[in-house]
Amino acid sequence: MAKYRIGIIGYGKIAHDQHAPAIASSPNFELVAISNGGDAVAPAGAKAFAGYADMLKQVADLDAVAICTPPGPRRTIASDCLAAGKNVLLEKPPAGTVTEVTDIALAAKAAGKVAFATYHAQHNAAVKRAADKLAGKQVQSLQVTWKEDIRRWHPGQDWILAAGGFGIFDPGINALSILTRIMPEPVFIETANLYFPANRQAPIAADLTLGTGFHEGEQLKANFDWRQTGPQTWEIDIETVDGLKLKLSDGGARLETDGEPPFVGPPDEYPDIYREFGALLDQSQSKVEAAPFQLVADAFMLGARTQVDAFEF
Amino acid sequence: MAKYRIGIIGYGKIAHDQHAPAIASSPNFELVAISNGGDAVAPAGAKAFAGYADMLKQVADLDAVAICTPPGPRRTIASDCLAAGKNVLLEKPPAGTVTEVTDIALAAKAAGKVAFATYHAQHNAAVKRAADKLAGKQVQSLQVTWKEDIRRWHPGQDWILAAGGFGIFDPGINALSILTRIMPEPVFIETANLYFPANRQAPIAADLTLGTGFHEGEQLKANFDWRQTGPQTWEIDIETVDGLKLKLSDGGARLETDGEPPFVGPPDEYPDIYREFGALLDQSQSKVEAAPFQLVADAFMLGARTQVDAFEF
Repeated sequence: MAKYRIGIIGYGKIAHDQHAPAIASSPNFELVAISNGGDAVAPAGAKAFAGYADMLKQVADLDAVAICTPPGPRRTIASDCLAAGKNVLLEKPPAGTVTEVTDIALAAKAAGKVAFATYHAQHNAAVKRAADKLAGKQVQSLQVTWKEDIRRWHPGQDWILAAGGFGIFDPGINALSILTRIMPEPVFIETANLYFPANRQAPIAADLTLGTGFHEGEQLKANFDWRQTGPQTWEIDIETVDGLKLKLSDGGARLETDGEPPFVGPPDEYPDIYREFGALLDQSQSKVEAAPFQLVADAFMLGARTQVDAFEF
Repeated sequence: MAKYRIGIIGYGKIAHDQHAPAIASSPNFELVAISNGGDAVAPAGAKAFAGYADMLKQVADLDAVAICTPPGPRRTIASDCLAAGKNVLLEKPPAGTVTEVTDIALAAKAAGKVAFATYHAQHNAAVKRAADKLAGKQVQSLQVTWKEDIRRWHPGQDWILAAGGFGIFDPGINALSILTRIMPEPVFIETANLYFPANRQAPIAADLTLGTGFHEGEQLKANFDWRQTGPQTWEIDIETVDGLKLKLSDGGARLETDGEPPFVGPPDEYPDIYREFGALLDQSQSKVEAAPFQLVADAFMLGARTQVDAFEF
């Protein structure tokens, strides 16, 4: 496998906490540059730029970029990087709107470069194992419970509850990305109830009913809530028509199956992302999946709105 | 061209007013059946069924169906019809959610049958002429004004202002479908302001800012409103970077271009839909476009919500 020179665009929390260490531990990548409006300290060996345009111009032999900015500008940045001959990796969701995801895929094809839209929760070993166990089966019941404390995970991040910030779907898309990975049949949003704080433009909680359309009696539900203090819950319970019971917990890290000891994968979502990106680059193969993001947009489109108490951090 | 035996599923207002006459005037189709929960009177020569399952079983040599029900059940119906070996035509929007549109395309491919997702406004001769004039150009400014009286066009239809009824995007998707047909570059939703009546779950008006991402100074806007009494306005004004000015009015039926006499196409949106469906069937070619519907979902996802006066019909 080749070794690729990569830059990170948008060197915020997720880039610092996950992307940089995953790249540092990868035999396939070398972090040579970051850009972050000029105020971030680059890891050792990487050069810091105020803007990505300078990075594209000044870094010799840059093979790829990881785009970790907020979602809004990602399509424009991806388009510029692809036009400059760079391969692109995108944090989730890949862009500000679903329409733009298609455009990124087309731009990569036109440039003859690789685009990889990532959804980190899909990279848990337990999630892949659950997908294998469910292959070819029919799901009778599904209960997604994704409840966490917004103050703990997003302290003071007002933008995430503004219009276009996705609200509770910022973590919720992780659960949806697990569903699109493990469910043996496509799932659709049937109904959505969205709970908007009186003083915010994005929902702080959502209850979804899902369907595959294949089973009359199927019960597929998802409950997302950002107002849970105390223990945090990221669980998916599934029962198939033929009686197999599965439970994914800890955000997809742990799998329990009836009659088997629990399986706990290594904490390597991001290392696995970079393993896959390396393989995609070696094969000149793009992977731009929109399905988890599409379910988010569908939920907003169908959603009934309920106003709840104003929220302050 | 072959002559195809077709049935209409969901024989409501649009089927009666547009599909049946268009089929009657087509040399390529023969209307042999309708289904509408049992209470509709079939046109002469067509047999009425309570449900589409009976139609599929009992009508010999049925080639195709036109699905004109409300959007919610369209994917399930399309799936059943494709599995029964029928080609399917879909009113707009093609399904209740965008995810389902992809599924319909896959189901058609798996069945070896044709699926055609229609957007009637695209079938105006003036719209096609506008697309030709704009090809290869860059748009500097766009103003979509789509303002009509909900009481005149949808009297008493409470479902259209319920969750999943799409609200103002029910007519708005016509404007968006013209944009995806005529704009020389893809357009994305940049911001959306959605106006919800205090007693309803779907917006009665929407203001959109659009972008192509290509031109710094571009001004692309759309204003949709269902509260316009008096004259009704369905207009699109465009100016290109090189100074060409276009105006589509009357919902896409009329085109004015600087320095040319106005062009008014024949009132044949639906006859043109059936001409194209006949050609697609002759070629065993599906056409399942999701782009206009995708823009609707994106607008809901990004939309800021403003509560406006309660609305009663």
